[in-house]
Amino acid sequence: MAQRIITLITDFGLRDSYVAEMKAVILGIKPDATIVDITHEIEKFSIRTGAYVLASASRYFPIGTIHVAVIDPSVGTKRRPILIQTSKSYFIGPDNGILVLVAKNHGIEHVYEISNRKLMLPRISSTFHGRDVFAPAAANLANGVSPATFGPEIHNIVMPEFTKIRRRKNMLVGEILHIDGFGNITTNFGETELNQLKTKTTVNVKLKNARLRLKLCKAYADVEPHEPLAVVGSHEFLEISINQGNAAETFKIREGDKIILYYS
Amino acid sequence: MAQRIITLITDFGLRDSYVAEMKAVILGIKPDATIVDITHEIEKFSIRTGAYVLASASRYFPIGTIHVAVIDPSVGTKRRPILIQTSKSYFIGPDNGILVLVAKNHGIEHVYEISNRKLMLPRISSTFHGRDVFAPAAANLANGVSPATFGPEIHNIVMPEFTKIRRRKNMLVGEILHIDGFGNITTNFGETELNQLKTKTTVNVKLKNARLRLKLCKAYADVEPHEPLAVVGSHEFLEISINQGNAAETFKIREGDKIILYYS
Amino acid sequence: MAQRIITLITDFGLRDSYVAEMKAVILGIKPDATIVDITHEIEKFSIRTGAYVLASASRYFPIGTIHVAVIDPSVGTKRRPILIQTSKSYFIGPDNGILVLVAKNHGIEHVYEISNRKLMLPRISSTFHGRDVFAPAAANLANGVSPATFGPEIHNIVMPEFTKIRRRKNMLVGEILHIDGFGNITTNFGETELNQLKTKTTVNVKLKNARLRLKLCKAYADVEPHEPLAVVGSHEFLEISINQGNAAETFKIREGDKIILYYS
Repeated sequence: MAQRIITLITDFGLRDSYVAEMKAVILGIKPDATIVDITHEIEKFSIRTGAYVLASASRYFPIGTIHVAVIDPSVGTKRRPILIQTSKSYFIGPDNGILVLVAKNHGIEHVYEISNRKLMLPRISSTFHGRDVFAPAAANLANGVSPATFGPEIHNIVMPEFTKIRRRKNMLVGEILHIDGFGNITTNFGETELNQLKTKTTVNVKLKNARLRLKLCKAYADVEPHEPLAVVGSHEFLEISINQGNAAETFKIREGDKIILYYS
Repeated sequence: MAQRIITLITDFGLRDSYVAEMKAVILGIKPDATIVDITHEIEKFSIRTGAYVLASASRYFPIGTIHVAVIDPSVGTKRRPILIQTSKSYFIGPDNGILVLVAKNHGIEHVYEISNRKLMLPRISSTFHGRDVFAPAAANLANGVSPATFGPEIHNIVMPEFTKIRRRKNMLVGEILHIDGFGNITTNFGETELNQLKTKTTVNVKLKNARLRLKLCKAYADVEPHEPLAVVGSHEFLEISINQGNAAETFKIREGDKIILYYS
Repeated sequence: MAQRIITLITDFGLRDSYVAEMKAVILGIKPDATIVDITHEIEKFSIRTGAYVLASASRYFPIGTIHVAVIDPSVGTKRRPILIQTSKSYFIGPDNGILVLVAKNHGIEHVYEISNRKLMLPRISSTFHGRDVFAPAAANLANGVSPATFGPEIHNIVMPEFTKIRRRKNMLVGEILHIDGFGNITTNFGETELNQLKTKTTVNVKLKNARLRLKLCKAYADVEPHEPLAVVGSHEFLEISINQGNAAETFKIREGDKIILYYS
């Protein structure tokens, strides 16, 4: 896998030197890294939004890209730094759910706790693991250090609500991940769940107050204006929309609401 | 021509992952591209401002640079994606005028409609040609794909008001492109028009309410304080200023106003 | 010294094309430069804040990094463009103090006035030396041009208050550089001053209204909650803090206030 691209997503903003310090550390270890900013304007501490934006962006990056995500409200506590290897990419960041939404969608192969001090900066602050732990991990990984060298493999990572899918009889219970400016409702049902559906033409869902049988479309215009539809967005999650309308307002849905997908 | 530098100018902002998705696509096709952000903070849908900023920035880039400009309010309609080849650079974006102001100034050699689906992403959304059409075009061009491979040569591109110069008898009718924070008035008269002037020491212009015979200066201080002057700005357009004063306020000029240049 | 990394810190913002024009000039001269933005969001004309952020960021960059800092309220006057060579890095910018805080901390080896017109753009504006003077200097230096080629060595650079340490009997008189959002007080006492202390376990300081004998700690939690402490921050300057408290409010301290350090 080509491993020269390292992406960064944080809630640090661009006013201070934090992002530059991470880049400095990366370039000190891996001088020919290609560093790409996804965004540094995630709302402070918003793990859910960070996870959603990371999932949206990461699918366009080449195989082997190393994604570093630092939305890290619990830095300095016992939350673990982790490295997730999927079939397509590597994800580095705190074990708080920021990485797991996208990693699950790619297919998680291994998770390692980053604990090998030799692969961190010599002095580790309690407030800035982005620079002291995650940036050196990404750069060392890009240099060819094998994932297992970073620490022990682990099997119990944190799964926040927004990454969870629960199976009940013939249904999958998921959550509303994101509502965009047009009222389109993004769910946390990804490829894994969609592959379990018996039919590829319609989906049956239950939102808070509505039970809907929706055409699974390629484009909004595949249904009549003001009709609801289902579509797999470019982020690869199932989305509920209304052609030329506002689905979130119509169905009174907010981020974090539950959604049920009937799969048979 | 060296073709490794790809610049980006958009109205996407840096909060979402759109810009990163464009970079991901570029790096997937041309891993050693050098991507430079011009700005992503153009006011939403402001083609004129985008065209002006692109013209200002592009002259400092090396020969062969590929500029991608995505201010694209009509994405998804029939407006065409185009590639303009000038004597100095390549310009890629929608056919809505964003590219043509600077391209005219460089000297347009060829314009191609980007229509070859093999040089786009496999799935083309109706909302994000920056990622699906323009980013792959830039990366493929940087890889050495010849311009004519992207689609048929065309000869009738869109010329919005702010790019137009009309000739009438002994005069050229142009437009005010931009007014900066100091009240300096940038016109859309560029090198082509200035080369038609008989004298290189003065310019005769008519603004909305004033007819002026202005010294063509190198620096504001070439005239007395509070005197008006003409100067060719670093963006290579003719500018009307007042030394230590505010020309736009003095002459009651706004962006989009007409200006006449007498060339004999 | 590896010389491919060039960092930029300015007060230009990211809305206009100024930063991109600097990058264009650098890449025209040094096509394989690795350019890293520290920040472009320094408050307009705030030399002190720029100096502080540059000092904070620069320590994480590899040996030989070239830092370009353009907070330049006096551009176009007789203030000199300078190049400072330290034991670790190069610093390029106006002679107004922006560079000297960090350079002093690294240990200044040579200072050169940048005056060789052959190493600037052919046309030098009076308003934008970032593009016309400093960017080409950085790129040429990265290309291996020796520092002495840029102009004569000089010995009298501008030392603004926030970089000055005055020695009086057994004391050093410095200044408060920065107060962060938590009320932590960063002084301008750096490694040079701290090396003069007889003991490495406590520091004696006088703030505006308080005389304090502080434990020199590694972490805030090395003292009891609500106790004051001294710590050397990641920017390598002495910092006065209160564990789980707000030192600036408690001691009524503002940026620019004097501080005395007793060294025996």
